[in-house]
Amino acid sequence: MTPTTPPTLTRETLGNRDQADPLAATRDAFSLPPGVIYLDGNSLGAMPKATAARVTDLVTRQWGTDLIRSWNTHDWIGAAARIGAKIAPLVGANTDEVIVADSTSVNLFKLACGALSLRPGRRVILTEPGNFPTDLYILQGLERLLGGRAEVKVRDREDLPGAIDGDTAAVVLTHVHYKTGECWPMAEITARAHADGAVALWDLSHSAGALPVDLNAAEADLAVGCGYKYLNGGPGAPSFVFVARRWQNEIGTPLAGWMGHADPFAFGDDYQPAAGIRQQLCGTPGMLGLTALECGVDTFAGIDMSALAAKGRALGDTFIALVESRCTGDALTLASPRDAARRGSHVSFRHPMGYAIMQALIARGVIGDFRAPDILRFGFTPLYLSFAEVWDAVEILREVLDSGVYLEPRFSERSAVT
Amino acid sequence: MTPTTPPTLTRETLGNRDQADPLAATRDAFSLPPGVIYLDGNSLGAMPKATAARVTDLVTRQWGTDLIRSWNTHDWIGAAARIGAKIAPLVGANTDEVIVADSTSVNLFKLACGALSLRPGRRVILTEPGNFPTDLYILQGLERLLGGRAEVKVRDREDLPGAIDGDTAAVVLTHVHYKTGECWPMAEITARAHADGAVALWDLSHSAGALPVDLNAAEADLAVGCGYKYLNGGPGAPSFVFVARRWQNEIGTPLAGWMGHADPFAFGDDYQPAAGIRQQLCGTPGMLGLTALECGVDTFAGIDMSALAAKGRALGDTFIALVESRCTGDALTLASPRDAARRGSHVSFRHPMGYAIMQALIARGVIGDFRAPDILRFGFTPLYLSFAEVWDAVEILREVLDSGVYLEPRFSERSAVT
Repeated sequence: MTPTTPPTLTRETLGNRDQADPLAATRDAFSLPPGVIYLDGNSLGAMPKATAARVTDLVTRQWGTDLIRSWNTHDWIGAAARIGAKIAPLVGANTDEVIVADSTSVNLFKLACGALSLRPGRRVILTEPGNFPTDLYILQGLERLLGGRAEVKVRDREDLPGAIDGDTAAVVLTHVHYKTGECWPMAEITARAHADGAVALWDLSHSAGALPVDLNAAEADLAVGCGYKYLNGGPGAPSFVFVARRWQNEIGTPLAGWMGHADPFAFGDDYQPAAGIRQQLCGTPGMLGLTALECGVDTFAGIDMSALAAKGRALGDTFIALVESRCTGDALTLASPRDAARRGSHVSFRHPMGYAIMQALIARGVIGDFRAPDILRFGFTPLYLSFAEVWDAVEILREVLDSGVYLEPRFSERSAVT
Repeated sequence: MTPTTPPTLTRETLGNRDQADPLAATRDAFSLPPGVIYLDGNSLGAMPKATAARVTDLVTRQWGTDLIRSWNTHDWIGAAARIGAKIAPLVGANTDEVIVADSTSVNLFKLACGALSLRPGRRVILTEPGNFPTDLYILQGLERLLGGRAEVKVRDREDLPGAIDGDTAAVVLTHVHYKTGECWPMAEITARAHADGAVALWDLSHSAGALPVDLNAAEADLAVGCGYKYLNGGPGAPSFVFVARRWQNEIGTPLAGWMGHADPFAFGDDYQPAAGIRQQLCGTPGMLGLTALECGVDTFAGIDMSALAAKGRALGDTFIALVESRCTGDALTLASPRDAARRGSHVSFRHPMGYAIMQALIARGVIGDFRAPDILRFGFTPLYLSFAEVWDAVEILREVLDSGVYLEPRFSERSAVT
């Protein structure tokens, strides 16, 4: 039986909820195009209004006028650690435990290698099938590279905790699943890993900036995260690395680039790692990407992450309730946990025609995304989305489904990125 | 005996030379601050005038307005290969042999691993002491990671060719030395490597965009290069990778990120490398850095690289002649090859007070740089420097030396980046 829309859920009541929302004002920090309901901030965060001017200042004044001197005078050399320190409170880390560098993929490689080095004699890296592809691919590449010294074991979510044993060097999991939004219980799995002497490496790509992650409360060992999703750092923004203090001077890095050297400007022939988190740097940091990322991270200044996450989950709950009550007679199936406490800030539904439906939604200004083979994914970024937008998005989804417009061939032609 | 300044070298004759220089017009493509003679384009290239507007367009229109759709509509997904194809003719490569990704350090790691995989059973990677530090550090890191499967051997320049033997998997050298500007004869060393069955991996950081590099004429196997020096891509610009066609589907990558997958948007669990150069991609490309790099590479459109290199070397010859004849009575010693054919586009002098002298020069608007322990380095970027500027720079150097101003304590205080 199709549920009826709860009488408390009308466009008017949702508009009232927006009026009362203490986070509603944070939307002013972002530039969003008219006519768009942007439900893809979990893939590419929206642009902070401050970014364009700060990037222009970097390019024209710092680079163009002050040139090479800017490494000192504008503290380019300190940017990676400075921005890392700003990300730290969003993920429950100390400011000296996070640094920005490279891409998430490259950082996963560094830390997976590092995890093996922290557990000599152990070779198993445990993860789950359906983890974000780059996490799996990077681990597979590491396994090929190290031959018998690394073995990737893939276990379904329900079997994974029980598969941790004395051969396990590391458990490598994505905190919030990129398709379903389901959360791993970080503290519980980390404790389970520790009980058998393994380390826990968390990919926070779909949680940092959306949920109140608390790495140190969970006693997490290692983590990486994405700069261009909820952190609003711009397309392909650099990634961040977390190494708990207790491991920083033990873990090393396989990518021993000059920026992670104890004294890079001595130009010596022998590698000596920098103390602390800085040894996770590798090459020269890309200042355009870092500057835009800093603007994105700055949008979190003064934000209570618990309140933010509560709003994100409420937006998701509202979306689920409206889709299930108003988009009737169709084959949409919830693919995310119904319990918001087990969910990140995005909600997914399955539909066999998911790709075409998403294309039809995008053509109408409701921008979510599609993940093969059948997932319609909708991100609810609490910094810049309103409850009224959730209503409007569902109404447009309903029109698309009711009209059958998504069956037109133009909506099922695949493009490179969906 | 101190040489006298050749009578043909006056500020007037040099000004005339600028008038006749067909490359003089390319300076208009760059924004350079007044009062500065910028002799550090080999460390951080100057800002092309086009960059600010194109980066602003990327940020405000492509990201800010078109959001996630820009991966398709603005071909963000194709940028790494498109810019690689533009770099290819600058380094004598086919357009499908070059792609932009990650940092030079990360790319060195990929290709050094790849070189080992192309030569199973061999474990020696041969390089020279005093190579750019990150090249040495990355190889040392790889040696630690692979245990007995890799061994870095370091041989002085004169002994290196003779040290290549049947155990050598790869010769890894920087084409133009970062301190002295001395060139390795790329074709000769590559042939020497091939004669013993080794592959040649060239770091083009100080040659791409300055010299007419011809990787395929030299039968080079692998190369990396820097985007932020002569290519004018902005601070920390992404790097480029060259893999000769014959190796592209054999070499693999240790950093098997999703962007190098044959079908990244199928989101499958198993890594399948993309065909060709694209498998050298790893994580999501940073679009701000790529966009600025593309502007930098575009400044080479229509440029004859041989004419460009000839100007660079003539600027260097002029500088050497003027320094040696006009800066008399001081302890400056040429650290670069006197023969321009054996030199890149920068010239270095040694001086025991090199650091302080460079600081005094910078305070007077002559921006070169210092490399420990005693190298004053002056880059002559032919795209935007004039012969008259070389005269003026030497006059200021002469004043600094004659006045002894560099002996003031304020010039010898070290800062983080020099």
